[in-house]
Amino acid sequence: MKLWDGRFRENLEAGAETFGASIDFDQRLWRQDIRGSIAHARMLAACGLISREEMEQIVAGLESIAADLEAGQVELRREAEDIHMNIEELLTARIGEAGAKLHTARSRNDQVVLDLRLYAKAELAQVAAVLCKLQEVLLEQAKNHLDTLMPGYTHLQRAQPVTLAHHLLAYFAMLQRDFGRLSHAYDAADVCPLGAGALAATTLPINREMVARELCFSRVAENSLDAVSDRDFVLEFTGAACLIMMHLSRLAEEIILWATEEFGFVELPDAYSTGSSMMPQKKNPDVAELIRGKTGRVYGHHLALLTVLKGLPLAYNKDLQEDKEALFDTVDTVKACLEVCAGLLQALRFRREVMAEAAGGFTLATDLAEYLVRRGLPFRQAHRVVGRLVGYCLEQGRALADLTLDEYRRFSPEFGPDVLAVGDPRRSLERRDLPGGPAPEQVRLACARAREQLAGNRSHPMFAGE
Amino acid sequence: MKLWDGRFRENLEAGAETFGASIDFDQRLWRQDIRGSIAHARMLAACGLISREEMEQIVAGLESIAADLEAGQVELRREAEDIHMNIEELLTARIGEAGAKLHTARSRNDQVVLDLRLYAKAELAQVAAVLCKLQEVLLEQAKNHLDTLMPGYTHLQRAQPVTLAHHLLAYFAMLQRDFGRLSHAYDAADVCPLGAGALAATTLPINREMVARELCFSRVAENSLDAVSDRDFVLEFTGAACLIMMHLSRLAEEIILWATEEFGFVELPDAYSTGSSMMPQKKNPDVAELIRGKTGRVYGHHLALLTVLKGLPLAYNKDLQEDKEALFDTVDTVKACLEVCAGLLQALRFRREVMAEAAGGFTLATDLAEYLVRRGLPFRQAHRVVGRLVGYCLEQGRALADLTLDEYRRFSPEFGPDVLAVGDPRRSLERRDLPGGPAPEQVRLACARAREQLAGNRSHPMFAGE
Amino acid sequence: MKLWDGRFRENLEAGAETFGASIDFDQRLWRQDIRGSIAHARMLAACGLISREEMEQIVAGLESIAADLEAGQVELRREAEDIHMNIEELLTARIGEAGAKLHTARSRNDQVVLDLRLYAKAELAQVAAVLCKLQEVLLEQAKNHLDTLMPGYTHLQRAQPVTLAHHLLAYFAMLQRDFGRLSHAYDAADVCPLGAGALAATTLPINREMVARELCFSRVAENSLDAVSDRDFVLEFTGAACLIMMHLSRLAEEIILWATEEFGFVELPDAYSTGSSMMPQKKNPDVAELIRGKTGRVYGHHLALLTVLKGLPLAYNKDLQEDKEALFDTVDTVKACLEVCAGLLQALRFRREVMAEAAGGFTLATDLAEYLVRRGLPFRQAHRVVGRLVGYCLEQGRALADLTLDEYRRFSPEFGPDVLAVGDPRRSLERRDLPGGPAPEQVRLACARAREQLAGNRSHPMFAGE
Amino acid sequence: MKLWDGRFRENLEAGAETFGASIDFDQRLWRQDIRGSIAHARMLAACGLISREEMEQIVAGLESIAADLEAGQVELRREAEDIHMNIEELLTARIGEAGAKLHTARSRNDQVVLDLRLYAKAELAQVAAVLCKLQEVLLEQAKNHLDTLMPGYTHLQRAQPVTLAHHLLAYFAMLQRDFGRLSHAYDAADVCPLGAGALAATTLPINREMVARELCFSRVAENSLDAVSDRDFVLEFTGAACLIMMHLSRLAEEIILWATEEFGFVELPDAYSTGSSMMPQKKNPDVAELIRGKTGRVYGHHLALLTVLKGLPLAYNKDLQEDKEALFDTVDTVKACLEVCAGLLQALRFRREVMAEAAGGFTLATDLAEYLVRRGLPFRQAHRVVGRLVGYCLEQGRALADLTLDEYRRFSPEFGPDVLAVGDPRRSLERRDLPGGPAPEQVRLACARAREQLAGNRSHPMFAGE
Repeated sequence: MKLWDGRFRENLEAGAETFGASIDFDQRLWRQDIRGSIAHARMLAACGLISREEMEQIVAGLESIAADLEAGQVELRREAEDIHMNIEELLTARIGEAGAKLHTARSRNDQVVLDLRLYAKAELAQVAAVLCKLQEVLLEQAKNHLDTLMPGYTHLQRAQPVTLAHHLLAYFAMLQRDFGRLSHAYDAADVCPLGAGALAATTLPINREMVARELCFSRVAENSLDAVSDRDFVLEFTGAACLIMMHLSRLAEEIILWATEEFGFVELPDAYSTGSSMMPQKKNPDVAELIRGKTGRVYGHHLALLTVLKGLPLAYNKDLQEDKEALFDTVDTVKACLEVCAGLLQALRFRREVMAEAAGGFTLATDLAEYLVRRGLPFRQAHRVVGRLVGYCLEQGRALADLTLDEYRRFSPEFGPDVLAVGDPRRSLERRDLPGGPAPEQVRLACARAREQLAGNRSHPMFAGE
Repeated sequence: MKLWDGRFRENLEAGAETFGASIDFDQRLWRQDIRGSIAHARMLAACGLISREEMEQIVAGLESIAADLEAGQVELRREAEDIHMNIEELLTARIGEAGAKLHTARSRNDQVVLDLRLYAKAELAQVAAVLCKLQEVLLEQAKNHLDTLMPGYTHLQRAQPVTLAHHLLAYFAMLQRDFGRLSHAYDAADVCPLGAGALAATTLPINREMVARELCFSRVAENSLDAVSDRDFVLEFTGAACLIMMHLSRLAEEIILWATEEFGFVELPDAYSTGSSMMPQKKNPDVAELIRGKTGRVYGHHLALLTVLKGLPLAYNKDLQEDKEALFDTVDTVKACLEVCAGLLQALRFRREVMAEAAGGFTLATDLAEYLVRRGLPFRQAHRVVGRLVGYCLEQGRALADLTLDEYRRFSPEFGPDVLAVGDPRRSLERRDLPGGPAPEQVRLACARAREQLAGNRSHPMFAGE
Repeated sequence: MKLWDGRFRENLEAGAETFGASIDFDQRLWRQDIRGSIAHARMLAACGLISREEMEQIVAGLESIAADLEAGQVELRREAEDIHMNIEELLTARIGEAGAKLHTARSRNDQVVLDLRLYAKAELAQVAAVLCKLQEVLLEQAKNHLDTLMPGYTHLQRAQPVTLAHHLLAYFAMLQRDFGRLSHAYDAADVCPLGAGALAATTLPINREMVARELCFSRVAENSLDAVSDRDFVLEFTGAACLIMMHLSRLAEEIILWATEEFGFVELPDAYSTGSSMMPQKKNPDVAELIRGKTGRVYGHHLALLTVLKGLPLAYNKDLQEDKEALFDTVDTVKACLEVCAGLLQALRFRREVMAEAAGGFTLATDLAEYLVRRGLPFRQAHRVVGRLVGYCLEQGRALADLTLDEYRRFSPEFGPDVLAVGDPRRSLERRDLPGGPAPEQVRLACARAREQLAGNRSHPMFAGE
Repeated sequence: MKLWDGRFRENLEAGAETFGASIDFDQRLWRQDIRGSIAHARMLAACGLISREEMEQIVAGLESIAADLEAGQVELRREAEDIHMNIEELLTARIGEAGAKLHTARSRNDQVVLDLRLYAKAELAQVAAVLCKLQEVLLEQAKNHLDTLMPGYTHLQRAQPVTLAHHLLAYFAMLQRDFGRLSHAYDAADVCPLGAGALAATTLPINREMVARELCFSRVAENSLDAVSDRDFVLEFTGAACLIMMHLSRLAEEIILWATEEFGFVELPDAYSTGSSMMPQKKNPDVAELIRGKTGRVYGHHLALLTVLKGLPLAYNKDLQEDKEALFDTVDTVKACLEVCAGLLQALRFRREVMAEAAGGFTLATDLAEYLVRRGLPFRQAHRVVGRLVGYCLEQGRALADLTLDEYRRFSPEFGPDVLAVGDPRRSLERRDLPGGPAPEQVRLACARAREQLAGNRSHPMFAGE
C-alpha cells in the first residue's frame, strides 16, 4: 500500500517500483526533509490547521527519527519510494494520527524542491569555503614566489618573463570569478517554494512567509507553477561548477607539465604522487590528472540536466527526479577537487633555478622591439628588425644576449650601447610596471588586492550559518 | 608576407593558411576593432608614445576604413588572417608610417579579447532587450486572460485548475531569472583587457585606465596572464543562453501541445504556421518546433566552448579562436528565437471554452480532500477517501460533480451538504488565495509585480548605450 | 605501504589517497579481474615464467578469493586503492611468495583495460538481450494491432491514417539499428590488451595469443601504446546507448501524450503508474517520464568520456580512471529503461475506438489530391484545390466526408461520384500498399521481416558463451 | 504565395518566414536534390504517373537549373523557404505544367532526408579518403623512424623506451578504428527513404526499388514513419567524427608538447607555424592548437543533434531542420583537420638525438626488475628492489647506468655482472619482442599489417563512386 493509492486497484509492478524509487540516493536529503517538515508543522499549528499538541507530537516524532537516522538505526524502505514518504510513514508509525496530518497543504512537488534548495544553499556555502581555501593557498604561494622568475607562455612556447606569483594570481582571479558565480547561484537557490503545493497552492489558509522565515529563506517563490518546475538554481550550481572544473583542469594541466622531466619546474611531493605497479622508477602526478579528468564528469552532469529539462511542459514532471544524482555528484566532485588541489599546491616545491633559467633567451625579443620603439622606430618595423635578429641568432646558434653591438647595428642603426643591458629578465620584469602587469611591485599590490577580495568572500552572507 | 614573419624563412602552406584564417567570421567584429584601435591610439598619444599628428592620422584612417566597410567597399584578404591584421594593413596602406605605430604596446592577444568583450556587451544588451519584449507580451497576454480557466498539469495529466494568466506568468518568472543571468554575464564582460599585451603587459609607459574609460568599461583586468586567456564572460553568456533556450523549449512544447487537435487550446495564427508540401490540410506549428529544436544548437555551443577550454595551459592558445563562431551563432539564435516567440505568442488566439471545459472534472479532487481536512480529517485519510471516491466514479462512469450527498457519505460521514458546492473550478481558484497562488486576486498582484520587474530591467545600465 | 612504493619516502596524504582510490566503484570488476588473472597465471606457467605449482597455488588462491567475494566475506581496503591491488594483496596474504609472482609481465595499465573489456563484452550482451525483449514486445503488440487505425502525425498534427502496428514497427526498426551499433561496439571491445604491459610490453617471453584464447577474445591489441590508452570501445558503448535512449525518449513521449485525457489513446495500467501525494485523482505515467528523463544522464556520460579523452597525450593517464563510473551507470540505466519499457508496453491497453475516431477527418486530404492526380491534374494544382476545399470546410464547420458532389465540383470539375468513397480511412490505408507503407498487407510482411531480424539478433555470437 | 498555402488566409509573417527559411544553408544540397528529382521523375514515368514527354521535360529542366546553379546564375529566394521548393518553383517557371507534376507521390519529408542521405554518403567517402591520407603519412613517417628511439610516457612521465614508429602506429590504429565507424555510418546512410511520402507512403502506384537502384542505394527504408523521422545516420556520422577529433586532439597535444623548448623533439616547419603580432621571436604551433580546439565544435554538434531528437514524437517534426548545419560543419571541420594534420605531420622534422637522449635514464628500471625475475625473484620483490635502487640514485644524483656491480648487489644478491648491460635502451627495445610490442622487428611487421589495412580501406565500396 502506498500513501497515494486510494484510487488504484493494482499494485505497482516490482520492476517499475524499483525503477521509480529514489530512496537509494535521495536519503541524502533526510536532514533537509525533517527540517522542512518541522517548519511546516509549526506553521500549520500557527494557522490553526493542526493543534499545538499535534504539532508538538510531530516535531518530537521527527526529532526522534532524525536522531535514529543520525545513528544509522533506521531501515529505509524502497517500497516507500523516497525519503519524503519514508519519513512520513515512520512518523505516522511512531505518533499515529497526528503524523497523517503533516502532509496537509503540501505536496511532494513543493516538498522535494524545498529540500533540494536547502541542500543547495548549504552545499554552495561548503563549495565556496573550499574554494576560498584554494585561493588562500594560491595567495600564500604567490607571496613565497614574488621574485621567482619563470617564462610566461603563449601557445606553450616561451613568450615573455613573468614571476610565479603573477602566474598563480591568474588562477586566483579565475576562482574569484567562480566565487561570484557561486554567490549568484546561492541567490538563485534562496527562494522558498513551500506553499506551491502540487502546482496550484492550496485551498487551506497557510502562511508561506512564516515557513520561509523559519527556514532562513530571503523570499518566497512568486508563482506556484514555476515553483514546482523550476530547477534553474540547480543549473546555476552545476554551470558554475563547470567553470570551476575548467579552471582547475588548466591548473592541473600546468602542474602535470611542470612535473615532467622536460620542464622540471616542480618536485612532486611524495605525499601527492603515486607509483606504478610495473615500473619501479615512476612517480606520477595522479592527483592533478584525476582533477583534470573529473572535469568531464561535471560537464556531463550539467549537460544531463539541460537535456532533462528541454521541452518539458509545466508543471512538475517525473523527469525532474533526475536532478538529484547529478547535483550530488557535482557537489562531491567539486569539493574534493578543490580540497585536494589546495593540498597539492601547498605541498609543491618549485625549482626556482630551473624556472629562472627557462625565463631567459628569446623571451626578451619584445623588449628589444620596444627598445627600438622608444628610439622612434614604428613598432611594426621594430618587430621586423628583431624578427630578423632572432632568425640570425638561430642560424648562428647564438643567443640574443651574446651578440655584439656591431651585430645589433647590422639590423638597425637605432641600437645603441644600452641595448646590451636589455637582456636581463629581471630588468624586463621591472619595466612591465602597469596595473595587472608582472612587475614585482604591481604583483605585490595585486596580492594585497587579492587578500581583500578573499576577506570579502569570507564575509559573504552564505557563511552566516542557517 | 605577414606582419609577424620577420624570423620566418618559408611562407605558410596554403592549406594551413586557410585553416587558420578567421577573417570569414571575425569580420563581424570590425566595428569593435576600429573603436578599440581609436581608443588605443588616443591613449598612445596621451602617453607620448606617438605624436598628436600620428594619432589624428590613425583616427582619420580608421574612420575612413570604417566608412568603407560600412559601405561594403573593402575587400578583406584571407592572407591577412583576421580582421585585426586586415585593418592594420589597410590603415598602413592608407596613411603610411603612422599606421605601423598603431600596434605599439599591444598584441592581438589583448586586442582580440577586447573586441570580443565590446561585442559581448553590446549583444548582451540586445538579447536582454528582446527578452524584455517577450516578457511584455507574456504580461499582456496574462492580463487578457486573468479569468481564462485552464487545467494545470503535472505529469501532463490534468491536476488542478489555474488560469492562463497564472500559467503565462510562470514563463515571465523564468525569463526574469534569465535577465538576472544576462546581467551577471554583462558584468563579467565589462572588464577592459587592453594593456595586457601578449600576456605580460608591456615595457612601454601606457595608461590602461584611460583606454578603459574611453571604451566605457567599468574596470581593467587585474592580471595580464588571465586577461588574455579568460573566456569566462563568453561562457556566462552561452550558459545563460542555454537556460533561456531551455525555457523557450518548454513554452514551445506547450504551444505545440495546445495546437493539437486533441488539446485544441489554441488556434494557430496563419501568419505563424506553415503548410505541407504533400498534405493540403496541414497547418503546422513550425515556429514553435524550430524554437524547440534550436535549443540543441545552443547547448552544443556551450559544450563546445567548455571542451575547448578544458586543460588549456596559460596563457593564450590558438584554441581560443574557436570562441567566436559559437558565441556569434548563440547570439543570433537566441535573439531570433526570443523575437519570433514574442510575435507568435502575441498572435496566438486561445480557445477559452475548450480550456475552461478541460479545467473541470477530477481536478477538484484535492479540494474535496481539503474540504475533509477542514472538517478535521487528517489529510492522509482525506486523500484516501477521495481516492476511493474517484475510483468509484471511474467504475460508474460518473463525474464527481454528479454524485449525490448520499454517495459522498458512503465514503465519509464528514461530507455535508456544502460538499456539492465544491465542484466549481472558479470557486476552487478563488480559494487558492495565497501569495504565488492562482487566485485571480493574487494573479492581479503578480501582474503588478511583473510590471515593476520589467520596468526595473529596462532601466539596467547595460541599456545606457556605450 | 603500497605495492609500488619502493622509491617513495613519504606516505600518500590521506585526502589524496581517498581522492585517488577507485575501490568503491571498481570492485564491480572483481569477477573479471580474477578471471583475467587466472588466465594470465596459466600463461606464465606455460611460458615457464612461474612453475606449475605456483600457477596452481595462484589459481586456487584466486578461486578462494572469488568464493569469499561472492559470499560477501571480504573486506576491501581503500588503502589498496583499487580492486586489482586488493586482490593481489589478498592473494599474497593467502598463498605467500607465489602471489608476488602474479604481476610478472603485467601492469595495471593493461590489466585494468582487460577487465573493462571483459565487463563491456558481457554487458553489451546483456543490453542487447533486453533490447531484443523490447523488440519482441513491440512485435507482439504490432501483431495485436494490425487493424487498429490511428492518425499518423507530423508536427504533432494529424496527417494521414496509419495503424498502430505500423507505428510500433517504426520503433522496432530503430531498435534494430541500435542492435547493429551494439554489435559493432561488441566487436570494438573484443580485443585482448594483455601483454601491452604499462605501455611497451615486457622483456619477458610471454604468449599473448594464449591469454586471448583463454579469455575468448577474437584478437590481440596490435599496438601496446594504443592498447593501454584506447577507450574507443567504451565510447562506442555509451554512444550506442545515447541513441537507444533517444529512441526510448521518443516512445516515452508518445506514451505520455497518448495517456493524456486529451489524446486518450491508452489506458495506463495501474501496475505502471503512480499517484500523487496531494491529489487523490492522479494516475501518472511516471515510468515513461523517467525513461525520458534518464536520456539526459546517458548523454551526459557520453559527453563526460569524450571530454576526459580530449587532448590526452599517450599512453595511459590517470584521467582514464574516470571511464568506469560513466560506463557502469550507462549500463545500469539502459538495461533498466529497456526492461521497464518492455513491461509497460506489454501492459498498455490501447483504446481502439478513440484512435480510430481520431484517424479520420482531414487526414484524407492527400487522398483527395492523389485522386485528382489520377484524373490527370498536376499534383501541385490538385494540392491547391484540396487546400481550398479544406479552407471551405473549416469556414463552414463541415467535414470533407459531408460535402456533396456539387460542392466538390465547385473546386474542380475533375471530381466524379467516386470521390465520395475516398473518405474512408481503412480504404486509404489499403491504398497505401507499398513496401514500407501502412497497408495492412505490407505491415503483415513487415512483421514477418521483423521476426526474422529478431531471430538473427538472437543468434549473434555475443550471446554464445560467457 | 507558397506552394502549400491553399488552405491559408494570411501570409507568413516576415520574421517567421526568415526564421523558418533554410535556403541559406540547405542550398548546399542542390546537387543531391536535382539528382533525386531526376530519379523520381524517371520512376513516375515508368509507373505511368507522368508521360514520357513530361519526364523528359522535367529532366531537361532540372539539368538546365543544375547548369545555372553550377555557374552561379540562379538567385535563390528566401520566400521559397528551402532548396527543394526553390528548385520546384524554378522548374515550373521554366517548363510549366510538367513541373507541377514533379512532386507527385512525394513529400518534402522524404525528399529532404533523401538529399541528406545522398550527401552523407558522398561526404563519408570524402572524410574516409582524407583519413586514409593521414594514415598514409603516419605509416610513411613510421617507416622513416623505425629506429628512432624515444621515451614512451605514462602520466606524461618517461616510462619505457619505444620508437617513434611504434608511437605513430598507435595513431594509425586509432584511425583504423575510425575508418570502421565511418564505414558503419556509411551503411546506416545507405537506405533510400523515397516513397515514404509525408509519413504514410502514397496511394499512387510507385516503384520504390527502382528509385533506390537509380540512386545507388543498397536498400529501401522498411517503415515509412521511421523513414521520415530517422536521423540515426547523421548521428553515426557525427558520433564517429567525435572520436576522430578526439584522436586528433591527442596527436595535436603531443605535437604541441614536442614543439616546446622543453621537450624539443620536433622542429616546427615554418610552413605550418605562425608568428606573434607582438613578440618577434615566436613560432607557434597554431595548426595543432586549432585542431585540438576544433574538437569542441564537433562534440558540440553531436550533442546538439542528440538534444534535438530527444523526446520528439513521430513522425517528422520541424525540429529536424536543425540536422543540417551541424552535419555540414562537422563534415567541413573533420575534413579540414585531417587534411592539415596530414600536411603538418609530413612536414615535421624530428630531432632524433634529443629524443634518443630522453629515452634513457630511469626508463630501464622495469628491465632491471624483469632481469631479477629471470633470476627467480618474484616480480613484486624485484619491483621493490629496483624502487630502492632508484631512490638511492636520486639521493646520490647518480644514474642507474653509472652504478657499480657492488652497488647493485647491496640491493639484491641476484644481480650479476650482466646487469651492467641492461642499461642500453636499444637492447631494451629489442627485448620487447612481442606481437604489438615496440621491438623494431615487431614494428616492421606492424607496418606491413598497417599497409594491408590501408589497402583494404581503399577498396571499400564507398569509394566505388555513385
